[in-house]
Amino acid sequence: MPLENLDSALAQRKAFREYFGERAYIRLHDSLDDAPKGTVVLNETVIYGYPQIGRILRLETGLQEQFRHPFHVEEKVDGYNVRVIRYDGRHLALTRGGFICPFTTDRLPDLMNLAVFDEHPDLVVCAEVAGPDNPYLVGHPPYVSEDVRLFVFDLMRQNQPAFLDDGTKEAVVGRYGLNSVTRLGRFTANDWAALQDLVRRFNDEGREGIVLKEEAPGARRAKYVTSNSSIEDIAVTAENMLQLPGEYFTGRILRLVLFMDEERLIPDDGLYRRLGHGFLDGLFRAVEQFKREGKVFHTYRCRFRRRENAEGFVRFLKHALGHGHVVQRRLYEEAGYVVLEFDKDFPKMTGLLGHLMGGGMVFD
Amino acid sequence: MPLENLDSALAQRKAFREYFGERAYIRLHDSLDDAPKGTVVLNETVIYGYPQIGRILRLETGLQEQFRHPFHVEEKVDGYNVRVIRYDGRHLALTRGGFICPFTTDRLPDLMNLAVFDEHPDLVVCAEVAGPDNPYLVGHPPYVSEDVRLFVFDLMRQNQPAFLDDGTKEAVVGRYGLNSVTRLGRFTANDWAALQDLVRRFNDEGREGIVLKEEAPGARRAKYVTSNSSIEDIAVTAENMLQLPGEYFTGRILRLVLFMDEERLIPDDGLYRRLGHGFLDGLFRAVEQFKREGKVFHTYRCRFRRRENAEGFVRFLKHALGHGHVVQRRLYEEAGYVVLEFDKDFPKMTGLLGHLMGGGMVFD
Repeated sequence: MPLENLDSALAQRKAFREYFGERAYIRLHDSLDDAPKGTVVLNETVIYGYPQIGRILRLETGLQEQFRHPFHVEEKVDGYNVRVIRYDGRHLALTRGGFICPFTTDRLPDLMNLAVFDEHPDLVVCAEVAGPDNPYLVGHPPYVSEDVRLFVFDLMRQNQPAFLDDGTKEAVVGRYGLNSVTRLGRFTANDWAALQDLVRRFNDEGREGIVLKEEAPGARRAKYVTSNSSIEDIAVTAENMLQLPGEYFTGRILRLVLFMDEERLIPDDGLYRRLGHGFLDGLFRAVEQFKREGKVFHTYRCRFRRRENAEGFVRFLKHALGHGHVVQRRLYEEAGYVVLEFDKDFPKMTGLLGHLMGGGMVFD
Repeated sequence: MPLENLDSALAQRKAFREYFGERAYIRLHDSLDDAPKGTVVLNETVIYGYPQIGRILRLETGLQEQFRHPFHVEEKVDGYNVRVIRYDGRHLALTRGGFICPFTTDRLPDLMNLAVFDEHPDLVVCAEVAGPDNPYLVGHPPYVSEDVRLFVFDLMRQNQPAFLDDGTKEAVVGRYGLNSVTRLGRFTANDWAALQDLVRRFNDEGREGIVLKEEAPGARRAKYVTSNSSIEDIAVTAENMLQLPGEYFTGRILRLVLFMDEERLIPDDGLYRRLGHGFLDGLFRAVEQFKREGKVFHTYRCRFRRRENAEGFVRFLKHALGHGHVVQRRLYEEAGYVVLEFDKDFPKMTGLLGHLMGGGMVFD
């Protein structure tokens, strides 16, 4: 057994047995020994989870405080995290939480050059999948205007928790023409002013932020996001406000204020209005939707190469989110793809709006 | 012992022994038997806590759902809740949490006609104290432009948890010229449209909302607030955002949206901007203050009749909030009063801003 305490983790429901078609696997719902949450075990093979990256809210002090060695800076792309592997002759995409994702797995031939696994069969390609037609999240980078694209940001190996070094990553990405996140160069903590300029430009361009990755021996990492990304996060989740902890929202307000303060940006009418819209528009939409449809939900659309993968994806989501909370709307062919439209319900929103709009009382 | 389990409550720290000068008393930090949190025990006398009133977020359905009998409607005043008693020959004001408040107690002769206790020595006068010069909260009704005023809304008796009926209350208030909250009349659930008109006017006037109190036999109660009050709550607490649960803010956004939807008010640029200002201005001020002063705090001002009460109030606040979190700024005489200016620190704001602005990392 690669992880010694896996049996007891399963018994304590810190790990779960899952199926992808006939293929059984185990995903870690909590960290276990040296394996973070989201680690996947396929028979004797361990695909380590993608470790969480800490956030700094200031560049000038943050770089001085966090980094002793030079670091590489990459664009942080607004999408969902996957790890792509070849296992037992098949290409699989694992979500951050450790599920094999039927959507991403279906689309892998469109998203990247899978020949990379011929030379490196035990490679784990860590990437962001981003674009408007994704089944997980609302919001996408401005430069992905349709469907989804995949952006590589790290490489690992099966059975190993460590990342490959930047030189190896660059070589592999270049040799196989993989689509990388934008690489912004090598910096030191003294370059904070240049990085301030860079993220101010990213902010203007509607891009999310940056990830900083120290070279060995420290290998520390940090992420830093723009104020526009904080407002956008609020705007796309407001319809869903009561499903999320309140700190999701107050934390983003704080990030926004500290970003603007560091960048010496003065709040103007446009910013105040945008934040007001961000908080209110989605919630007004949710109320209208509840009155019209009796529940609050969001409709997602994504395209598949094969119909059975679309159907498998709906089954997968029903398993992951609860059977009653996913409703298939349409499944139709278009331009050589099978397009799936489905609703994801927000049961807490529906429940609380139903209670309150029906005249219910709260003690708060 | 009036409350049987008081000793074990004290042992479990659900009740605390407190002192007001030489006078010892016990306050309930949690409910105990039939006595709510905030109940005060003075020797053999129990002053029951003021019970929490549930909130409705819709009038039309809420009145139908909550009230079977006619109810009285009163203005909800934006201040802090006190219970005023005469005990052992002295007039005392108790806070919602069950402390004897040295500020309100000092000012009682200014705030109400204490002769009411000559005829009714066991009366408990439940009232809101509101105005800009109060030591507890920021924000005040538009019609109290200086100092504080007291608004009576309920009467109880010592050793009894029940409220006196509306007729008795009106008679006592009238006979002693007590300043009552605005009484808006007697309604039934069918009068929801008239109450919608009324709170829309309150919203325009910057008033907080209404409290509905059913006549016996039901005696149910509910409160309902305007959207402007929700924005105002956000604006006056944003400097203090990280001291409060995030749901403080998201709950108010939800109230605002449901109020506007029920009142058929269309959000406009002014509203979006005001909400944006509400969230951002206080937090920008907190950041500036932290950079200038090394900590985040709010300066309060209030006036006392007697200097020893002002000094006692500072000691009281240091005891209630923690010694390091209250700083006396100035104590000076003005127009026959002793004016106290003091700072209340926001240690969580100071701690988190210090961590983040110093370049610290968070995992969120």
